[in-house]
Amino acid sequence: MTYCVGMMLRSGLVFMSDTRTNAGLDNISTFKKMTIWEEPGERVMTLMSAGNLATTQAVVSLLEERSKHPEDRTPSLLRAPSMFQAACMVGDTLREVIKGLREGGQRADSAFEATLILGGQIAGSPPRLFLIYPQGNFIEAGEDTPFFQIGEIKYGRPILVRAYDPDISFADALKLLLVSFDSTLKANLSVGAPLDYFCYRTDSFEKKHVGRVEADNPEFQAISTQWGNALKQALDTLPDVHLNTN
Amino acid sequence: MTYCVGMMLRSGLVFMSDTRTNAGLDNISTFKKMTIWEEPGERVMTLMSAGNLATTQAVVSLLEERSKHPEDRTPSLLRAPSMFQAACMVGDTLREVIKGLREGGQRADSAFEATLILGGQIAGSPPRLFLIYPQGNFIEAGEDTPFFQIGEIKYGRPILVRAYDPDISFADALKLLLVSFDSTLKANLSVGAPLDYFCYRTDSFEKKHVGRVEADNPEFQAISTQWGNALKQALDTLPDVHLNTN
Repeated sequence: MTYCVGMMLRSGLVFMSDTRTNAGLDNISTFKKMTIWEEPGERVMTLMSAGNLATTQAVVSLLEERSKHPEDRTPSLLRAPSMFQAACMVGDTLREVIKGLREGGQRADSAFEATLILGGQIAGSPPRLFLIYPQGNFIEAGEDTPFFQIGEIKYGRPILVRAYDPDISFADALKLLLVSFDSTLKANLSVGAPLDYFCYRTDSFEKKHVGRVEADNPEFQAISTQWGNALKQALDTLPDVHLNTN
Repeated sequence: MTYCVGMMLRSGLVFMSDTRTNAGLDNISTFKKMTIWEEPGERVMTLMSAGNLATTQAVVSLLEERSKHPEDRTPSLLRAPSMFQAACMVGDTLREVIKGLREGGQRADSAFEATLILGGQIAGSPPRLFLIYPQGNFIEAGEDTPFFQIGEIKYGRPILVRAYDPDISFADALKLLLVSFDSTLKANLSVGAPLDYFCYRTDSFEKKHVGRVEADNPEFQAISTQWGNALKQALDTLPDVHLNTN
């Protein structure tokens, strides 16, 4: 499994992904699930993936190849006129890869499927964030749904639903995401550190604020250990219930 | 879907279950998923169910019928010599019902399946808590795993993992469960209020502290609205992270 979150803030976009992949419980590896394309001053795009690793790597490789020499190859993400067109391109590539695998004589139902989050900005337009389905179609984040999760989404969702605020800083957004990821890590063996992150500041058009949080990062560990106590204190601040317990 | 939690405390057992059942998104009903059997002064048993409603109702009806005139019918939950034997009996009944449905010419793979939580106490032994699988086998709660969840378990799990403490009072346990259920209700349409609860005090051998929390219960609403703020404040108490965000 996997856990990735893409989030829209007033100040930009924030992405975080885990790095664990597994084929069964006894075959665990670490792979980066976040890819960033950059044309400094002109566009930045981030892609995160959940699902079949072969599928997602094929999608990224195809997009990479087409982006390295954009003059020679079309369509290229680095030539897409808008984030919408970029999302179409990624969706088409995803559908194409899954279709190719299915037609290759393999029958595995949904085993080749993958779901993607694409976010970024092209000069002249605001940042945009998309959730791309295995079928190649996609939905876009907005004020009502300002973040997308893919993979093992349930454990880490309640804290995001409650504490998300479009006005928080990048540092607070990363803190919120670390809590959400920590809740997931604690509950599900198929999600694992290190965690990759990227905070994109609107109109910066640069790949900055990129990093990786290792499992033994002391700040991450402090958050993890202190969150349990913070939750207990939060419970204590709630009003008493006077149900039938006496 | 469904969400039920059974929890062992030093002072006894606490159970909570939602009441929503659905066949598709447009066919929603309210059914009680908690059944309590009582022989005052001698034994109390609680059963909660998740899964196919027809299966779980058949299991409860069979167990009920056999318990009403325990002299005439064996095996009866009210004559089981131990909670272990009671769990065997419930597991056998569950397997029998699922097998009967499968052999009735219907093919629906796991569609007839159900999972149960059984907890209670028989005079002379301590309280015990079991999770019973569709195959009829079961596991028992202990100090390392002091609570069981069935149904839509993921959203409400992180708060239980972090804040569970065997020494909390019934009132605080219900508060914790209301938060766990509220997180689930907010995220999943297939789990819904009212919520049934039962707090069983060890060696009381009586069905007391039983009740139902309606969606418009003002204390539940206060907890639901204030939990978001409490979480934000809990986040604020966490140490700052100095990742690459400047």
